[in-house]
Amino acid sequence: MSAPLPSWNDGAARQALLDFVGAVTTEGAPTYVSPEDRVAVFDNDGTLWSEQPMYVQALFAVDRVRALAPSHPEWRGRQPFKALIEGDEEALRTLTEHDAAALLAATHAGMTTGEFSHTVKEWLAKARHPRFQRPFTHCVYQPMLELLDYLRGNGFDLHIVSGGGIDFLRTFCEETYGIPSSHVIGSSGKTRLEWREGQPVLVKLPSLTSLDDGEGKPINIHLHIGRRPVLAFGNSDGDLQMLQYTGALDGPRLRLLLHHDDDAREYAYDREAKAGRLDHALEVAGQEGWTVVSMRSDWNRVFP
Amino acid sequence: MSAPLPSWNDGAARQALLDFVGAVTTEGAPTYVSPEDRVAVFDNDGTLWSEQPMYVQALFAVDRVRALAPSHPEWRGRQPFKALIEGDEEALRTLTEHDAAALLAATHAGMTTGEFSHTVKEWLAKARHPRFQRPFTHCVYQPMLELLDYLRGNGFDLHIVSGGGIDFLRTFCEETYGIPSSHVIGSSGKTRLEWREGQPVLVKLPSLTSLDDGEGKPINIHLHIGRRPVLAFGNSDGDLQMLQYTGALDGPRLRLLLHHDDDAREYAYDREAKAGRLDHALEVAGQEGWTVVSMRSDWNRVFP
Ligand SMILES: [Ca+2]
Ligand SMILES: [Ca+2]
Repeated sequence: MSAPLPSWNDGAARQALLDFVGAVTTEGAPTYVSPEDRVAVFDNDGTLWSEQPMYVQALFAVDRVRALAPSHPEWRGRQPFKALIEGDEEALRTLTEHDAAALLAATHAGMTTGEFSHTVKEWLAKARHPRFQRPFTHCVYQPMLELLDYLRGNGFDLHIVSGGGIDFLRTFCEETYGIPSSHVIGSSGKTRLEWREGQPVLVKLPSLTSLDDGEGKPINIHLHIGRRPVLAFGNSDGDLQMLQYTGALDGPRLRLLLHHDDDAREYAYDREAKAGRLDHALEVAGQEGWTVVSMRSDWNRVFP
Repeated sequence: MSAPLPSWNDGAARQALLDFVGAVTTEGAPTYVSPEDRVAVFDNDGTLWSEQPMYVQALFAVDRVRALAPSHPEWRGRQPFKALIEGDEEALRTLTEHDAAALLAATHAGMTTGEFSHTVKEWLAKARHPRFQRPFTHCVYQPMLELLDYLRGNGFDLHIVSGGGIDFLRTFCEETYGIPSSHVIGSSGKTRLEWREGQPVLVKLPSLTSLDDGEGKPINIHLHIGRRPVLAFGNSDGDLQMLQYTGALDGPRLRLLLHHDDDAREYAYDREAKAGRLDHALEVAGQEGWTVVSMRSDWNRVFP
């Protein structure tokens, strides 16, 4: 058997992963954790795939707004629609997850969940990352794919816990990460049951019911999983509460933050970033001894 | 290997189950369903365990109200609290799932999810069914336990989808049914993240965020599972939409309703019942050819 995590350089981060997996899987050890409690949670944007120059879902929303604009003349005078239609690059760069959610709400209301999923899949198949010129699902991080496999092989129960929309995420998480839809948690909107063509379907409504960010992450982890994770991996301040919530005070637990410090191969951003800001969580990581993964020095490869 | 479903009598219901499992597991057959799509959903109250003379969770709420009443003098003049404190049997019998949810909200607000779970477990360990004089977790249906095992053995992905509170359900579903907390869906209330004793915890708030009944069931199935089930088993009008939502129009699917027609061994109730009413769904079952399971004639044994 080849060594695990080949795209990870030898170093503190890789060693922390190997040590933790060893500790929780060694039967009889005081640190042993039974498989049903080996819950591991992963943020998606900026942790499993690239979130720069803009959240992928925000790019999708932009394209949707542009596609739908001809039938919505009222958008021309209203932000953030106006900026998108006019291609205002500065406004686009400052889109928050909240803006993205608002845009999505405006652009998907009335679609069934099936139609929405179909629209996203079509878009993902054609859209390309503006810098890397490849599909967004190929802008996932090879070291993270290896980590998911490694944890899965050691009996971990993997879940995505993302600020992105749950229906958006589910269009690619199974194929891209091997994580089934029931293990994907995200922001969610209201739906209504309607009959169309002799079948009950769920129609997406414009209001958001859960923003899966900040304290929303532990709240949704409890709602969807019902267990405290033992491992959490994030990359921004929006993951702080999820990482804090991970593990019992006196039990084994591993908290990791990916630090984007690699402008050459991907991007470098942290405290000043508009999307994916990593500021307070980096402070806490230092105080608490969490594992900060440097993209530049801990990974010998970024994309598959 | 012994024959599956020993507590089920030979008959149309047992045969429908055997035929369906055979059809979806036969590789190469047009009815074949891959394991990740073999999602099966079960109502809990009245489908997996007894819901008479009152929902178990309502009985729990009653006991909580009585235990907390001394510190809530305002409850003495307010329904439904007044009825509970005074032991008004008629009012107790007409408690709806909504009332139960309201009572729970009033009685659990301020507790952490961990404290709530602990309180429920302590109560379940001591409480006894008023007629059967055994713990409620022993008032589960033996034929249904066999069905869960049979489906699990055939690669089905089992989920509970209950009107009961999700935190209440999770205290016993894993041990009693072998269904882990992440596969348990129920009604849920708001929670807030707070720090207590150096650890972030989730505190239960009084407002309900999702009533997992009626159209709430397909909505939550989509939110938590993200796939349409191929098998659904319920027992009341509250399960109608879940059964309708089950399966694609042209795909294999099995919809079942348990009909409580066995006053000798359990209870007999349907169209006139105050809790667990089965009226409109029974009509639709007849029109649509769903499988109606008669407790009296399809089961040779009721409890373990
Ligand atoms: Ca992120
Ligand atoms: Ca029921």
